Amino acid sequence: MVTVDFLQGDVFDPACPTRLILDRIGDKWTVLTVLLLRDGPLRFTQLREGIGKVAPKVLTQTLRRLERDGLITREVFAEVPPRVVYTLTPLGRSLIEPITAVSDWAEAHMAAITTAQREYDAAAG
Amino acid sequence: MVTVDFLQGDVFDPACPTRLILDRIGDKWTVLTVLLLRDGPLRFTQLREGIGKVAPKVLTQTLRRLERDGLITREVFAEVPPRVVYTLTPLGRSLIEPITAVSDWAEAHMAAITTAQREYDAAAG
Repeated sequence: MVTVDFLQGDVFDPACPTRLILDRIGDKWTVLTVLLLRDGPLRFTQLREGIGKVAPKVLTQTLRRLERDGLITREVFAEVPPRVVYTLTPLGRSLIEPITAVSDWAEAHMAAITTAQREYDAAAG
Repeated sequence: MVTVDFLQGDVFDPACPTRLILDRIGDKWTVLTVLLLRDGPLRFTQLREGIGKVAPKVLTQTLRRLERDGLITREVFAEVPPRVVYTLTPLGRSLIEPITAVSDWAEAHMAAITTAQREYDAAAG
């Protein structure tokens, strides 16, 4: 059993670790990884292909952080070559709903944002 | 009227601007700014105090990006000293719900994540 310093976080308290967590889960690669693992466990190469245009080093770092945060597990099967499989934990699965909401919002409003950016740049230029 | 290249975004298409937007709205300072503006317009100093421990330059950049993305408006009132007020647009207001879901998740699961991190580090050390 590990002692925790806070029971409930507060994003408006700069000393609270919730702020770091907020940055982590808002990260693009985290969002895409969690969404891909929604339907079941995947191997590294499947995640890499699913995300598209992610540097292997960046994906490795993302997966390590997610594992450290308790959001995914990493299992190694002693085959030749070894098979490494990533799976969402129950904690990771609880993130699917809020992350899907943010991702759906981005997809739905992408055109409006792109339009706003062009108008802003035209006015500034 | 501005032409848009996509009508609906796809976060899994690396060429789609949705990915950039995902990064933007997941940014910690964006989340905190939108949450603070939820209850009405605020001045720069009010935002700075509300967020806590944010460098003025970082807050200025965050506000400019949010304005460019069409999520907030910036109004200058010709007083002495000039009063500058930031307000969520209807597009920005539509972001409140998904962002609140992510923020609530971070606050609710902060202790579980902190515990997972300590266990991971203890096992690795």
